[in-house]
Amino acid sequence: MNIETEQRTASGLKLKQKCRSDMPVIDCDVHNEFTNYAQDLLPYVSREWKHYITEGLFRGVAMRPYTLWQGGYRDDVRSEDGSPAAVNLDQVKRQHLDQWGIEYAILTHGVTALSVCYYGQYEWASELAKATNDWALDNWLGDPRVRCSMVVAAQHPTAAAKEIDRVSEHPGIIQVILPTRSPGGVAWCDPKYDPIWKAAERHNLVVGFHVNSDAGNVLPPTTAGWPRSYLEASAAYVIAAQSELIGIICSGVFERFPQLKVAMIENGFGWFPSLMWRLDKHWRELRAELPWLRRKPSEYAEDHIRFTTQPMEEPESPQQLLQLIDMMGSDEYLMFSTDYPHWNFDSPARSLPGAISADLAEKILSGNARAFYGLPAARHDTRTSGAALDE
Amino acid sequence: MNIETEQRTASGLKLKQKCRSDMPVIDCDVHNEFTNYAQDLLPYVSREWKHYITEGLFRGVAMRPYTLWQGGYRDDVRSEDGSPAAVNLDQVKRQHLDQWGIEYAILTHGVTALSVCYYGQYEWASELAKATNDWALDNWLGDPRVRCSMVVAAQHPTAAAKEIDRVSEHPGIIQVILPTRSPGGVAWCDPKYDPIWKAAERHNLVVGFHVNSDAGNVLPPTTAGWPRSYLEASAAYVIAAQSELIGIICSGVFERFPQLKVAMIENGFGWFPSLMWRLDKHWRELRAELPWLRRKPSEYAEDHIRFTTQPMEEPESPQQLLQLIDMMGSDEYLMFSTDYPHWNFDSPARSLPGAISADLAEKILSGNARAFYGLPAARHDTRTSGAALDE
Repeated sequence: MNIETEQRTASGLKLKQKCRSDMPVIDCDVHNEFTNYAQDLLPYVSREWKHYITEGLFRGVAMRPYTLWQGGYRDDVRSEDGSPAAVNLDQVKRQHLDQWGIEYAILTHGVTALSVCYYGQYEWASELAKATNDWALDNWLGDPRVRCSMVVAAQHPTAAAKEIDRVSEHPGIIQVILPTRSPGGVAWCDPKYDPIWKAAERHNLVVGFHVNSDAGNVLPPTTAGWPRSYLEASAAYVIAAQSELIGIICSGVFERFPQLKVAMIENGFGWFPSLMWRLDKHWRELRAELPWLRRKPSEYAEDHIRFTTQPMEEPESPQQLLQLIDMMGSDEYLMFSTDYPHWNFDSPARSLPGAISADLAEKILSGNARAFYGLPAARHDTRTSGAALDE
Repeated sequence: MNIETEQRTASGLKLKQKCRSDMPVIDCDVHNEFTNYAQDLLPYVSREWKHYITEGLFRGVAMRPYTLWQGGYRDDVRSEDGSPAAVNLDQVKRQHLDQWGIEYAILTHGVTALSVCYYGQYEWASELAKATNDWALDNWLGDPRVRCSMVVAAQHPTAAAKEIDRVSEHPGIIQVILPTRSPGGVAWCDPKYDPIWKAAERHNLVVGFHVNSDAGNVLPPTTAGWPRSYLEASAAYVIAAQSELIGIICSGVFERFPQLKVAMIENGFGWFPSLMWRLDKHWRELRAELPWLRRKPSEYAEDHIRFTTQPMEEPESPQQLLQLIDMMGSDEYLMFSTDYPHWNFDSPARSLPGAISADLAEKILSGNARAFYGLPAARHDTRTSGAALDE
């Protein structure tokens, strides 16, 4: 099997032999964006809060501390009138699901929606989260290929848990999505958030931690403060992921919530093997400090944590990528993702090395996500739905 | 060649065939400690500052936020009277240099000495750094196998540069040692520190960044705040290293100081390959943001940065360690270190995998450090000096 099948011709990219002709693809990081945050949410905001938008002129919090080229979007996926990408389901279906023959797409919202965790105003943040979820239920679940994440204002854990109880009744909601960096400098491992993990576990929702570069009520993204470029801030995503994962594992979150499932989304994974080696080694030497841990750290990771692939690790040689996956200690960790519609999109057809085994490719492209998110075998035919680019 | 030559017998560890019988060893992380910080330094503190100790009762800053088992020391290297390890040159020679037949030991001071960077009182910190260096020159350089690091109060860069000018005249001083986490939340990549890099470059001193778990005027060691255990704080050392290295490379420090050499000491290295892949990838995509970089990030790293080995990465299989070293992209990155006298000491005889090539082992055990620090071929006979444990 070779899934590197894109071929360039004089007319540009042809996608005749897409991986979907070989294998199903579950895309675990597809962004669904607002056209206008405040206006899109206004109909879903409770009467007693509407004046925040209508009179308070709330427009969302513009917290990007860096200029992103093209606003962070792919050049080729805007609407025909130039408006933003991924702002409605039809657009996502046409530009992405159909084009690549995606079996399932897991929607992860955008940076604005996730930033609700970084608002100082707890109650307003909880209201915005609730409105975002109602907006998503109304607008984003009208296709059998689509599953959606819900957002919560995690700085207000009891309200967040109630919101999970409320929204999780909808079968299209399969994940609670949170920014990787914890709010207000209170690490995700802090018992403060236990009501959220308890609710997610109760409803069998995955907790997804997605990179989020924004400021607000949150510590800087590195231990050396704010990087001076978006390039550096991008590379530094892996730092918050390591910071939080150490705490989540070592503080015993998975002992307290043995059914909890955590997806690390767009956080990289090249750093993971050596971090686990180090945690396991220190656990052997210093476990007296953490008597609540009954197993070594890597065993908790293997049972509870998965990683999405984008932005794919890109070593010098494809063989090193396979070695790296081997170093992770399990072939069940990785779940494929594209990050559509963002600029650093990973193509389903070009992201895995040609030398990968069919078994491992199948697990990464769909099998691991299917098992982790509990997705049923698709009844929709993903092959015939993707004719857009066929010639 | 097989350097895993320790053999257990009924009488315990025998060290008959130590690696020194095969290859020279340069140990790049040997700690020289105070017996009593304030009292040891008192003779070296200028007259106008002595009252800080004699009347202000300054005793050093007790900033360890965690309990370390045995204070962080090996059980077996205390003095016979129970006093702390590594507090004088004779002890270090007997317990370490002789025992392992070390060709060169690079002294890196202890956590107390490095913490001078985290004092709010800039001038007092500069005075303590100066006293520490004079104390080291008087007490720690009386053996041809020993080289020493100097300390500076980096939060006061002009004074630090002057101190480098003053101390670097001594040929035994080959490194300026700093804590990996930058002082006061001002990243090491900030131009504020340029006078220090300029002085180190001028005197051909390596700048060594050594882990330092202490608090004081410094940001927390993770982006999620302070870990709740020493185990986690230990594993999190790698986080500050990544945070600072991204900035040092991307801000163009090595363009401004093309002869500057940086040793990452006790910061791990398993995280390094994937960080370089990511930085190189982002540099290809976003280099317009950093026009001062003329080469890709990994090229700066290869020319300017080295890593000490302890605490050695310990994957499931020795083969994975060799793969990891291959992923680093150069066999010149790693420099052996033991961390004597600390609890997580790496033995020269047992730290490298048996399957390593003789050429790579030689580079890691001595060749890379010899070249990086510019150490001359030893005239002292390291073989006959190490009879302590021979039977």
